Amino acid sequence: MHAELAQRVMSAEEAAALIQPGSQIGMSGFTGSGYPKAVPMALARRITDAHLRGQHFKVNIFTGASTGPELDGALAMVGGMQLRLPYQSDPITRKLINAGEMQYMDIHLSHVAQFVEYGFLGKMDLALIEVTAILEDGRVIPSTSIGNNQTWIECADKVILEVNSSQPMALEGMHDLYYGLGKPPHRDPIPITLPNQRIGTPYLQIPPEKVIAIVHTDVPDRSSAFKAPDENSKRIAGHILEFLAWEVKKGRLPENLLPLQSGVGNIANAVLYGLEEGPFEGMTAYTEVIQDGLINLMKTGKLLSASATAFSLSPDGVQSIMPHIGEYHDKIVLRSQEISNHPGIIRRLGVIAMNGMIEADIYGNVNSTHVMGSSIMNGIGGSGDFARNGFMSIFMAPSLAQKGSISTLVPMVSHVDHTEHDVSVVVTEQGLADLRGLSPTQRAKLIIETCSHPDYRPALRDYFNRAERLSYGKHTPHLLTESLNWHARYLRTGHMLPDKC
Amino acid sequence: MHAELAQRVMSAEEAAALIQPGSQIGMSGFTGSGYPKAVPMALARRITDAHLRGQHFKVNIFTGASTGPELDGALAMVGGMQLRLPYQSDPITRKLINAGEMQYMDIHLSHVAQFVEYGFLGKMDLALIEVTAILEDGRVIPSTSIGNNQTWIECADKVILEVNSSQPMALEGMHDLYYGLGKPPHRDPIPITLPNQRIGTPYLQIPPEKVIAIVHTDVPDRSSAFKAPDENSKRIAGHILEFLAWEVKKGRLPENLLPLQSGVGNIANAVLYGLEEGPFEGMTAYTEVIQDGLINLMKTGKLLSASATAFSLSPDGVQSIMPHIGEYHDKIVLRSQEISNHPGIIRRLGVIAMNGMIEADIYGNVNSTHVMGSSIMNGIGGSGDFARNGFMSIFMAPSLAQKGSISTLVPMVSHVDHTEHDVSVVVTEQGLADLRGLSPTQRAKLIIETCSHPDYRPALRDYFNRAERLSYGKHTPHLLTESLNWHARYLRTGHMLPDKC
Repeated sequence: MHAELAQRVMSAEEAAALIQPGSQIGMSGFTGSGYPKAVPMALARRITDAHLRGQHFKVNIFTGASTGPELDGALAMVGGMQLRLPYQSDPITRKLINAGEMQYMDIHLSHVAQFVEYGFLGKMDLALIEVTAILEDGRVIPSTSIGNNQTWIECADKVILEVNSSQPMALEGMHDLYYGLGKPPHRDPIPITLPNQRIGTPYLQIPPEKVIAIVHTDVPDRSSAFKAPDENSKRIAGHILEFLAWEVKKGRLPENLLPLQSGVGNIANAVLYGLEEGPFEGMTAYTEVIQDGLINLMKTGKLLSASATAFSLSPDGVQSIMPHIGEYHDKIVLRSQEISNHPGIIRRLGVIAMNGMIEADIYGNVNSTHVMGSSIMNGIGGSGDFARNGFMSIFMAPSLAQKGSISTLVPMVSHVDHTEHDVSVVVTEQGLADLRGLSPTQRAKLIIETCSHPDYRPALRDYFNRAERLSYGKHTPHLLTESLNWHARYLRTGHMLPDKC
Repeated sequence: MHAELAQRVMSAEEAAALIQPGSQIGMSGFTGSGYPKAVPMALARRITDAHLRGQHFKVNIFTGASTGPELDGALAMVGGMQLRLPYQSDPITRKLINAGEMQYMDIHLSHVAQFVEYGFLGKMDLALIEVTAILEDGRVIPSTSIGNNQTWIECADKVILEVNSSQPMALEGMHDLYYGLGKPPHRDPIPITLPNQRIGTPYLQIPPEKVIAIVHTDVPDRSSAFKAPDENSKRIAGHILEFLAWEVKKGRLPENLLPLQSGVGNIANAVLYGLEEGPFEGMTAYTEVIQDGLINLMKTGKLLSASATAFSLSPDGVQSIMPHIGEYHDKIVLRSQEISNHPGIIRRLGVIAMNGMIEADIYGNVNSTHVMGSSIMNGIGGSGDFARNGFMSIFMAPSLAQKGSISTLVPMVSHVDHTEHDVSVVVTEQGLADLRGLSPTQRAKLIIETCSHPDYRPALRDYFNRAERLSYGKHTPHLLTESLNWHARYLRTGHMLPDKC
């Protein structure tokens, strides 16, 4: 390790002692990868001690996206967070947010870094970043995610590094940090024209004078297992593959498709598994995370390359893939999330965006974040970056949730994350609705007849038919006294289905 | 004129006779500028004749944005449109759409051209484009708007040109048509780094063999007058100017601001008038339309240059500015709307987006398109292109509409065009709410206390306070049985105010 930096090695407790109450801290971490593990735990203990002494101690935590129990879980458990942004998926954190006990701000992942650089979100006091290694000359090898690390280091006064020896040294060379992005009005075009094109350097630049602590850890990323694709996920994947094949046949997509983006989760993974068996060769991905499915697709030779900002492998994936990660250097590029999710690049490359959803309404508005309009799930993540700017945007979910007591197709969504203007395709296990070129009423008929579950279809037809007759305007027919009744009924009775059905 | 093309000169009636029922037609026209005037009128007469003979005759009309009575008005009046997209502002067209008698599809203005190029919206049969002149060598000088003309000409089998001698020849050299934009995955970066940078050619390229008719007209653009800014508009403008000055003082904006985008309408014009008196020098604009206010700002020397896709001048503006338009060649660039509204360029330049709205809710979701959730006004236009990708997005409206019977701040918007993720600032004559960095509940308190009208403030407080106690989730507190009651009450009683207030 770099000689000057070696003098700042200390324990997690000593490092946590350098963190002041009220600090705004930019941490590494994206979909459970590359987040700091030791210092957040030590900070949580420090906060508990302060609280036991009757002292107020909370911090604001910014990350790349979701982290692990050692970070969000530990800090939420001790009530240590005042504000959290952007994406999170920790159950304790979620509970506190939805109890109104901490603030959460839901920002597009591509916007976070620039909003901090612009000074919109206040001063960044500290960056706490997990890295793979610090080389003797001071160059730093990033960990299994990049997220907003570059910006946190640039904007924070002080930096704490966790050097995680459990991350493979073979990650060296896989990252691409672009230091050419200025602030408006002095920004040049980002020169990416191919998904896996390298435009920067593999190393994080960290001014040594900013580094106040270095902590050694060997705790692996705590990732979640994927379930084997269930019947519904397979059906959804089947509909999407059939649709893509049709688009190729009609000449609207090249035979190797266009760069793929796929959200995190079981349905997304089922689509990737489906592509393994599918007819498409020579594919690429320009996406947020490298999931097991993408690696498997690479092994078949069908996926040539992938750009992302993080790995998000299952425990099996970590075991089987990480030891051989060096073999993927020419195929995988990890970038800052400002670049991996950049609207301009996504539009330029023509990305096919595939993301899960909580619910869609009959007019094609999509809710990705709120349960029953008020309770946050995880946040919008990058779905908006890709859906809004991609070649086409596909949203997918099973037609039923909670053992059939919830229909994911509703008269009106209880919260909108993706407007009718931004949704090309809605797909459930029942079928796929291609909404391109359709007016609202044409969309409604198609979504009801194609995507909705037969148990709810009559009720959706009933709502739409009456709305077509009785609505104030007939462009997007709605009965405002009824449009959110399904959600209200669920909260009251535990079931969305109208009494009369 | 070009010799080969000169042979295709004919009357508007003869040209209209070449248009088949069921055609999909891409027409020029953007905010009442540069739309074809003679052939649409002749087509309307032809459609009427067909209808009188009992024949079915409808066409699909794509434009840049809104046109004039000779196009939308005439074709709507005779029931000649099956489908219309994207933005429109014609009262008869609006009435038909909201009566469910024609289809309308509301697309982001930056998406229209590429969706047609991608083949998402079906085959383009014909392009009908107003131009200023056809030179002897075949080069074509565009008219007062560019819109999607380049794409219509490229994608259509046949082209009809209206050469409008009322448009000043001094427009020659003002346009910038970029022919370097490929289709994914073969797209290079668009090289714009300054608002008024020219990257293409001033002339439309039209393959002569596609031109089936040329019609001469001399009818000026029919533009609407701006009202002198009223008290509310001036107050809104005042709040925005104060805010911008504060942002400069805090170092978050350069002293000459960043490129401005301003929507069409009286409030937007009031802001531009305000900037005439304001302290900012050396400004630029990267926007959709050149309004009177922008020209006046240029005359003061405070606005150095502007990029747009169209003029949208008042009748006074046309009279006073168009004869001298040659003087603005180095200051004004007109581009295709795919470029003027391009997400990547808007983000690169860091545009300050300022757009009007119909209503906002207490959490910062904005409705730009639908009255009472079901009735379309004009369409989303370019507001989403700019608000989503700009440096910051400001939405503005008076706090009351319809003589106080409507509050533009409501518990929940009846339609979402700009999500909570995309709105930085909401401003009414009451005040300006800076939502950056705030959680939903923090936003709600600020919007209620700062922006809402005192007549409605108690009712908004009451809703929010009860929602904070009784909502299922406390992240975005809502009472779903009440959240759209204000709109429902307005439809029932003609007033939004709850009985108990």
